Amino acid sequence: MFSVTCVAPVNIALIKYWGKRNEDLILPINDSVSMTLRTDELCAETTITASESFYSNKMWLNGEEVPFEENTRILRCLNEVHRLAICAGSQKIPLSWKIHVKSFNNFPTAAGLASSAAGYACLVYSLACLYGIPVNDQLTTVARQGSGSACRSLYGGFVQWHRGNLDSGCDSVAKQVVSSKFWPNMHLIILVVNDQRKNTGSTLGMQRSVQTSQLIQHRADKVVPERVNQLKTAIHKHDFDTFAKITMKDSNQFHAIAMDTYPPCVYMNETSHSIVSFVHDFNELMGSSLIAYTFDAGPNACLYVLEENIPKLIYAINKAFPNDEESADYLRGIPLSNLDIQSKTKDNIFREKMELLKIQQKNTLKYIIHTKVGEGPRLLRANAR
Amino acid sequence: MFSVTCVAPVNIALIKYWGKRNEDLILPINDSVSMTLRTDELCAETTITASESFYSNKMWLNGEEVPFEENTRILRCLNEVHRLAICAGSQKIPLSWKIHVKSFNNFPTAAGLASSAAGYACLVYSLACLYGIPVNDQLTTVARQGSGSACRSLYGGFVQWHRGNLDSGCDSVAKQVVSSKFWPNMHLIILVVNDQRKNTGSTLGMQRSVQTSQLIQHRADKVVPERVNQLKTAIHKHDFDTFAKITMKDSNQFHAIAMDTYPPCVYMNETSHSIVSFVHDFNELMGSSLIAYTFDAGPNACLYVLEENIPKLIYAINKAFPNDEESADYLRGIPLSNLDIQSKTKDNIFREKMELLKIQQKNTLKYIIHTKVGEGPRLLRANAR
Repeated sequence: MFSVTCVAPVNIALIKYWGKRNEDLILPINDSVSMTLRTDELCAETTITASESFYSNKMWLNGEEVPFEENTRILRCLNEVHRLAICAGSQKIPLSWKIHVKSFNNFPTAAGLASSAAGYACLVYSLACLYGIPVNDQLTTVARQGSGSACRSLYGGFVQWHRGNLDSGCDSVAKQVVSSKFWPNMHLIILVVNDQRKNTGSTLGMQRSVQTSQLIQHRADKVVPERVNQLKTAIHKHDFDTFAKITMKDSNQFHAIAMDTYPPCVYMNETSHSIVSFVHDFNELMGSSLIAYTFDAGPNACLYVLEENIPKLIYAINKAFPNDEESADYLRGIPLSNLDIQSKTKDNIFREKMELLKIQQKNTLKYIIHTKVGEGPRLLRANAR
Repeated sequence: MFSVTCVAPVNIALIKYWGKRNEDLILPINDSVSMTLRTDELCAETTITASESFYSNKMWLNGEEVPFEENTRILRCLNEVHRLAICAGSQKIPLSWKIHVKSFNNFPTAAGLASSAAGYACLVYSLACLYGIPVNDQLTTVARQGSGSACRSLYGGFVQWHRGNLDSGCDSVAKQVVSSKFWPNMHLIILVVNDQRKNTGSTLGMQRSVQTSQLIQHRADKVVPERVNQLKTAIHKHDFDTFAKITMKDSNQFHAIAMDTYPPCVYMNETSHSIVSFVHDFNELMGSSLIAYTFDAGPNACLYVLEENIPKLIYAINKAFPNDEESADYLRGIPLSNLDIQSKTKDNIFREKMELLKIQQKNTLKYIIHTKVGEGPRLLRANAR
């Protein structure tokens, strides 16, 4: 009997992945670039136990058993890891032993924050630890076959998922652009939005987009390659202003493609749009792009901001999106006291500017998570009995 | 002293005009196609009086005086009509006489229904009547310089505005595709939506789109020309299903381009999106596209529907968008009694299907206007004293 426990991070795309050229192998129509988040706030934690005495493979997600042998994506990940173990000649534990997988998210799944990327990255990373396979680009092709964007969660810092050209998908790999240490003051403020709307799932949504949008191919062929280069240059130069503009434009374009889909997919709601207006207003008042928004296939906003600008941003959010709740439950993650915010935003000129922000109805935000760029997956413990 | 009074219709674009290649001459980056509406429900009515004794040109809009000599668009229209009168050798009244223009809309301007198209079409048509100039393609280039889409309101039925290629704009003209008699059972149900949001004006919005959207040129060059041909073929064949699909796709793509603009322009609200879902659900339940939506730069929905399907549509709207108001003030325009609706939708299978519609909160719609395809502008009266 042998067991490993690992954690893997969530990643948020800056250049969005939207559309597959091969549904089965999960090969995308364009490159994407993401930032990996700290696992302290958001992560998947997975324990895999392998034993000679287990009769069958089993899996539990957040405490509830889920089908294993019927889940083609999980099976494919397991088979692919087995194949890599054979190729690597690794004989840490016998491949014939059945496994039990227990996985948890440390954040509410109801928040609509991409949990499948962290989940599949954690599964594949844990399997790699179990069977003694190194983390490299090849392993990212395995995670990709679980959930496309999971491949980006196998690295920390900023990560590029290369679409690749081969039909086999061998070259559709994730590679690190820079580590989390390269831009350590890059933070993220996630605004979790109250939402009623039932959205189109992203697998179905992107299928429909590829089939019906008359703009998606132009985006993939012409717009994204240029943006990926510009964004990587901005990251290498620590040029936040350019980083912000490309990130916001790409979020908008992804939602434009979703809108150009037939029937259209709508993921942002009124609150999302008021956050977009808020960010543009704030940046205009501040005279440069100090914040960038990005929205995935849901209404929650991810706001990128440098550490030094966080008190100002939080002050502005509290102003524009007033909330009855003032407890720690409202502002979660990396601590930031109200005292800090008040003392670091004392400047009268700043406060006068903030008076110009449009004030939304109370309680349009559910809660806020403060986190930052983080490391890739890691092994917490391994036991042999 | 000489006076004319004319009415001119509103038109609703099926293939949207969005983006100018010349701001001054109002030359569009792509062709557009529209349907002209009956003037009984929506129109501009304009009286122009010319007199030797007037000291200056003046204008009143809905009873309030507005600047004339400072309004470059109005001045341009007047000068262009003068030029055409000289070219035509028309000497009905001296060009040196000053004019007084009084214009009204017969529909609430608060409804956010494009009133400038009808307004400028009416101004130019009235000037043409005043100076004795025929309505032809050349006159549409004048209306175009007042408000782009006004050129399409100079004809009834279905109308194409050709973008043209010349820098002068001489070939950027509107032409009738078919008259209103060709598809007389084509009706329109306008859902006027309660809205709080202050939108970006369309002049500014389309400027920003041309400057910043990385998808708009592809739309103009590749998507629109094909769609215009398909739509015209569908109109010529009375093929409502194809007509509906192209119309809905083009509305979506226009809002996609607005979203791809930086900062993004958002014109549809939650109610607009729930109408979109409603139309797709209704069409799916009915087994074919019996309704088509289109949205201009605002939240109101224009629903195209053949006359024979109106009772079913109204029944479904009343089901999905319940309203406290049941008076004639809620359902305006071409009369349709509740008795009619009830008797024509008795079919139990139909009613069972309608039970599957998602029901929205009460009173999300402000009111409904029922109208249909109509004629171009007309002279109501002319007086000489």
